[in-house]
Amino acid sequence: MEFAWIDWLRKRVPPHPQMPLGPGDDCAWLKFPGGNCLATVDVLMDQVDFDLSTQDPKRIGRKIMAANLSDLAAMAAKPTAVLVGLVLPRQGGRKLAEALWEGMAPLAAEFGAALAGGDTNSWDGKLVASVTALGEPGPGGVLVRSGARPGDRIFVTGQFGGSILGKHLDFTPRVAEMLSLSGRFPLHAAIDVSDGLSADLGHIADESGVGVELWEASLPVSPAAFARSAELNGTRSPLECALGDGEDFEIVLAVPPETAELLRRRHDLSCGLTEIGRFTAELERVRVDSHGVRRPLSVPGWEHLFM
Amino acid sequence: MEFAWIDWLRKRVPPHPQMPLGPGDDCAWLKFPGGNCLATVDVLMDQVDFDLSTQDPKRIGRKIMAANLSDLAAMAAKPTAVLVGLVLPRQGGRKLAEALWEGMAPLAAEFGAALAGGDTNSWDGKLVASVTALGEPGPGGVLVRSGARPGDRIFVTGQFGGSILGKHLDFTPRVAEMLSLSGRFPLHAAIDVSDGLSADLGHIADESGVGVELWEASLPVSPAAFARSAELNGTRSPLECALGDGEDFEIVLAVPPETAELLRRRHDLSCGLTEIGRFTAELERVRVDSHGVRRPLSVPGWEHLFM
Repeated sequence: MEFAWIDWLRKRVPPHPQMPLGPGDDCAWLKFPGGNCLATVDVLMDQVDFDLSTQDPKRIGRKIMAANLSDLAAMAAKPTAVLVGLVLPRQGGRKLAEALWEGMAPLAAEFGAALAGGDTNSWDGKLVASVTALGEPGPGGVLVRSGARPGDRIFVTGQFGGSILGKHLDFTPRVAEMLSLSGRFPLHAAIDVSDGLSADLGHIADESGVGVELWEASLPVSPAAFARSAELNGTRSPLECALGDGEDFEIVLAVPPETAELLRRRHDLSCGLTEIGRFTAELERVRVDSHGVRRPLSVPGWEHLFM
Repeated sequence: MEFAWIDWLRKRVPPHPQMPLGPGDDCAWLKFPGGNCLATVDVLMDQVDFDLSTQDPKRIGRKIMAANLSDLAAMAAKPTAVLVGLVLPRQGGRKLAEALWEGMAPLAAEFGAALAGGDTNSWDGKLVASVTALGEPGPGGVLVRSGARPGDRIFVTGQFGGSILGKHLDFTPRVAEMLSLSGRFPLHAAIDVSDGLSADLGHIADESGVGVELWEASLPVSPAAFARSAELNGTRSPLECALGDGEDFEIVLAVPPETAELLRRRHDLSCGLTEIGRFTAELERVRVDSHGVRRPLSVPGWEHLFM
């Protein structure tokens, strides 16, 4: 439903003089008198985005905060503040709230975000957590999804696939990495990978009006993708897990060729930064294997939602 | 639970160089490079804050937006943008989302707020809506709860009591009124009335370290307070409804005596602006009737939560 709803909304959101960017990016970009603000909200629910019956609430709190900070990272923004709205189950709500806080607060502090406010409620339903993160443009300015140009190279942080085996709870939002890169290298576009690498590459392509050519052999496939493939008895290959699994929370970058040359030689990200393809003028989205065979990029049956 | 939880949180929220005001006001106050931002989040749930089985979803959408804008009004802030997080019931979710939007969007536009983003989800539970509003300080600067001083006069917009009979869905957030006042008159503190007049006067008193003396005969008791009292067979008087009922969404102001003098003669608010008492150095909170009899301000059994 979400994409049809977003389309419906996009036709209706009126332009606003303080909102230079339309809807549909990782964060809203707002012009305040004298400065810019990036803002993003995520709402996560028990039994949809996480499972309180089996997962540690402190880790869940950490994940909720990390996912939100990842949206700021996707725009190369510096976190300023977070606001947390909680709807707690009446039974055990206070203890749960404290555990969530213990997961959220250290991460906010680590990335420099003020814990600026919130709203705490309780009810007879399941836990719902809403986190709003606010940030400032990093040293390279605001990085949007729509900036990719034909010929831009595709770089990614980290590794992909099998996040469900643990990384989706314990990942590092790539805030520091993006601030470091955006201050030193001209970049064109970025997104964080929540829907899955092939889907999120598609979002950049949609917004930028470009095609995608992904080089399969260059893709950093994580050990977890191999483990996940084995768990699925090989019904999906490790590569398919890397392309399709959601919630890697790595960053996909579109960089001009001159920057690509610099990044290959000079990046210093300990998480890795790998060139995996290019954006093209032709609008098709393909992956190319090591034999040169071209296939559609999208992977059937990828995982959108985790439990 | 909420107040104990807020106390727990307040001891733990670390100070932050960009957050001049600690937690506990209507909005967070954030210093961005070159400017200030006010931010507030509210989370509202079906069967707790509203009732989808009997109330029009468009009116509910309007209320959710209006309540959030009221928090900006309470700090005399100019709305800049709103972000909306929705958790929709799977059955009929899309239709519901559109109706909520039709209630929210015109109000945001009326008050100049960009519809800047959001996150839409669905699940098997009830509707949850989270609205984050961002604003800029109005012409008089940021107005906080903690600024009331002994001798300050208490002014209120509008009328009080019986909001449950309709106003809680259709009220006007006092954004324009507060921007008008704060640009022309020195003000000390403000709050919007969501918990009920006597409770919210208490919040200003708590934060400012002052007492309260309310003049019963001066209080603008709404016709709805009389209707509500009759509905309750007189078990609560109209005055008690005005003091205790929640969700009036009017503004309580602390103003220095010089400003009080100006406001009495020169205010031009069509909603009315009434002087109802004063803040005192003695920490007691009393109401004084027309015979001079003093009683504790707090009203037993006020309504906190609406359906």
